[in-house]
Amino acid sequence: MKESYKAFTANDLEALQKICGVERVIPRECIGEDYSHDELAGIHNFPDVLVKAVSTQEISEIMKYASANNIPVTPRGSGTGLVGGSVALCGGIMLDLTLMNHFLELDEENMTLTLEPGVLLMDVGKYVEEAGLFYPPDPGEKTATIGGNINTNAGGMRAVKYGVTRDYVRGLEVVLPNGNIMELGGKVVKNSSGYSLKDIIVGSEGTLGIVTKAILRLLPLPKHKISLLVPFPDLPSAISAVPSVIRASSIPTAVEFMEREVILAAEEFLARKFPDNSSDAYLLLTYDGASKEELDIAWEEAANICLECGALDVFISNTQERNESIWSARGAFLEAIKASTSEMDECDVVVPRRHVAEFVLYSHALQKKHNIRIRSFGHAGDGNLHIYVLRDELDEKSWEEKLAAVFADLYSKADTLGGKVSGEHGIGYAKKPYLADSLSSDEKAVMAGIKAAFDPANILNPGKLF
Amino acid sequence: MKESYKAFTANDLEALQKICGVERVIPRECIGEDYSHDELAGIHNFPDVLVKAVSTQEISEIMKYASANNIPVTPRGSGTGLVGGSVALCGGIMLDLTLMNHFLELDEENMTLTLEPGVLLMDVGKYVEEAGLFYPPDPGEKTATIGGNINTNAGGMRAVKYGVTRDYVRGLEVVLPNGNIMELGGKVVKNSSGYSLKDIIVGSEGTLGIVTKAILRLLPLPKHKISLLVPFPDLPSAISAVPSVIRASSIPTAVEFMEREVILAAEEFLARKFPDNSSDAYLLLTYDGASKEELDIAWEEAANICLECGALDVFISNTQERNESIWSARGAFLEAIKASTSEMDECDVVVPRRHVAEFVLYSHALQKKHNIRIRSFGHAGDGNLHIYVLRDELDEKSWEEKLAAVFADLYSKADTLGGKVSGEHGIGYAKKPYLADSLSSDEKAVMAGIKAAFDPANILNPGKLF
Repeated sequence: MKESYKAFTANDLEALQKICGVERVIPRECIGEDYSHDELAGIHNFPDVLVKAVSTQEISEIMKYASANNIPVTPRGSGTGLVGGSVALCGGIMLDLTLMNHFLELDEENMTLTLEPGVLLMDVGKYVEEAGLFYPPDPGEKTATIGGNINTNAGGMRAVKYGVTRDYVRGLEVVLPNGNIMELGGKVVKNSSGYSLKDIIVGSEGTLGIVTKAILRLLPLPKHKISLLVPFPDLPSAISAVPSVIRASSIPTAVEFMEREVILAAEEFLARKFPDNSSDAYLLLTYDGASKEELDIAWEEAANICLECGALDVFISNTQERNESIWSARGAFLEAIKASTSEMDECDVVVPRRHVAEFVLYSHALQKKHNIRIRSFGHAGDGNLHIYVLRDELDEKSWEEKLAAVFADLYSKADTLGGKVSGEHGIGYAKKPYLADSLSSDEKAVMAGIKAAFDPANILNPGKLF
Repeated sequence: MKESYKAFTANDLEALQKICGVERVIPRECIGEDYSHDELAGIHNFPDVLVKAVSTQEISEIMKYASANNIPVTPRGSGTGLVGGSVALCGGIMLDLTLMNHFLELDEENMTLTLEPGVLLMDVGKYVEEAGLFYPPDPGEKTATIGGNINTNAGGMRAVKYGVTRDYVRGLEVVLPNGNIMELGGKVVKNSSGYSLKDIIVGSEGTLGIVTKAILRLLPLPKHKISLLVPFPDLPSAISAVPSVIRASSIPTAVEFMEREVILAAEEFLARKFPDNSSDAYLLLTYDGASKEELDIAWEEAANICLECGALDVFISNTQERNESIWSARGAFLEAIKASTSEMDECDVVVPRRHVAEFVLYSHALQKKHNIRIRSFGHAGDGNLHIYVLRDELDEKSWEEKLAAVFADLYSKADTLGGKVSGEHGIGYAKKPYLADSLSSDEKAVMAGIKAAFDPANILNPGKLF
């Protein structure tokens, strides 16, 4: 990295230990290897010190110290990112937020949940469901922290009906690079009081401020749920059904597409059979609602649309067990593909819904063009695709060359279809060149101006986004 | 205003006429009085020239000229704002966008509507409903332009269930102060590709860029709708039912509260009877959905909750005619209150839902404290209140003093309840001091930095927000 920061010294270590105590300030030589990378992006670097913060006040003092001493700070949740967003590229302080994992207030009257950023997504779901409430965003990675979800504006499967993380963030407490604490939004439902700083923080990948508290919007928990697994003779016919399914009277909660090869990989990975694997392509639809009557109308209409579009059958899944077998397979796709190869990298583009089939078929064709294995699955309902390029037996050099060539093709195709570089995983370090290609110089200048407004010395998560 | 801009001259007029032709460039002496103010804020000023733009290209050239010559530019839709946001405080160019009122594309597969900013809200609804689609945001002022709605992040009655304008803006075309054209977002459902500039433009009240095109997200049109008019003995008991109604299995589309005095004013204004005016306070609930069965379950549950909370009765309104009589009264509240007095000003605070009753009762008490008439109605479901302070017979000086005193009390009360200055009308010119009081110095600094990133010379809608 080109930024010149102060070299981290024993004095700095001591100063941080004075703020946080000795136990939660881990010097370079004792930092585990896990903290040098995330789940995927092929980038590794160690911070000079790992600080496991426990309070906003502590983080405020750390940032005051870091900013006074020109030391870079990289915030980190559970490290489940896929683009290197939480890797300390410039060394310095890694701020681990996983100990800040407390629920602070469930306000049932305002239907909000106030919590710390280190709470895991899977724990949010459980916690609010016990009170008959519902936090709709549902990214695949359930061990991610809510702070990570907010910083990438994570989407997930239920975006078709419910939208993304941004739509559920009502308020944020943020520690600025200068150590000051900012409260944005609140428990209010509407807000037109100046520029929406909250919405700039959402999706900013830890480059503008440290989220230390969030107020999330909750909904009533839908009491009924049903899934349909719908086999099609091929992918284009499966995808062709999606616009009509979404335009029907009831909006589906999720519309996922899956191809046989990925299902087979998941079956092998889980050592467990999927309800059906005889067809080339499947749609998986889910509906939720307040009453069984409502769902019956919804799924019957959807089933008819699918059959009219060439579906071979419609499997109804309305028992816990069946749902479990389908969704556990769906949940294992990423891990299953990962287990099938030596290394991989991913492309998380989002394209307008009606271009999904075209894009996936294009990615199929790239396998032949570049002689490399490519697997994909994704959110047919919202156009967000996860395309995985697999290294298999390739040597380092060929892998890097092929990967770059495949990515160049994929991102350029997405661009011509009106798509965007990242639907939900963010840019981090790994996707920077593709974001740079996709932005105009005005957009870059304005984004740089926003960064400077929050973080003039560029000490917060440097080397990310642009 | 303290900014020093170039004085507008005959040369400037000529240059603008060269860009747009003579007919759509109206010199100061021919500008109608309407263009010197908006619907409410007690601020008047004329621009030096009024330009009725018809294309993005034209606006780009105008901005290039204005920025090269240091001339302020104030964008304007139909001028229905209530806070002076579209008044040309510093003179210069007023950019009237009402001729850019074309629908550009209804994309049924992606469920998006692309349109120009001057299209009226009421026309958006009609247009998409003909295709069986639905644009959920529903601010009371139907003759507002969609560009105005985007710039104030307008909310409206259906925010309880469907959210606000921000939630339906997928993409924007924006002309920057330097005249360059920026495309933000698109038809994609998710996006995690750098800072969300689109979300900074939404609600920025024309201070960062000129919105020249928008891509809106649509939903399937709910086929069924039902309203419940529920009389209560008093306001607190009405409001006390709201959290339980919202927590029930089905989310209501709208939850409005109304008090008898406002209903009486609307009856007089419309010369038309409301279904009932015998009670002190009412809730008006609406449900929509894909099937009658679903709605029957929803309204029965809601009716029971209201009766348990002390409702005196529940009137069901499921015919066009009954709906019409209720909603036309609701729609006339603002005009009816306005017609009942010589002048008025409004406070558009939003508070957390469970403080609505407390806030409205507080506003009642202020009538006695300040010896002035105050009327209110609003969105009980989302905590956004419209409180109107009425001048009646007061002389100029007493009016100004009393208004300032009442506003000071109202905004300070809202602040202590965790509320915000504006729920949906924006800050404009009139609410600047209250926004300034409510923001921390860090928030102000960051907002100023964002303004500078977009508009370094401060030529776009100067004198607004801060």
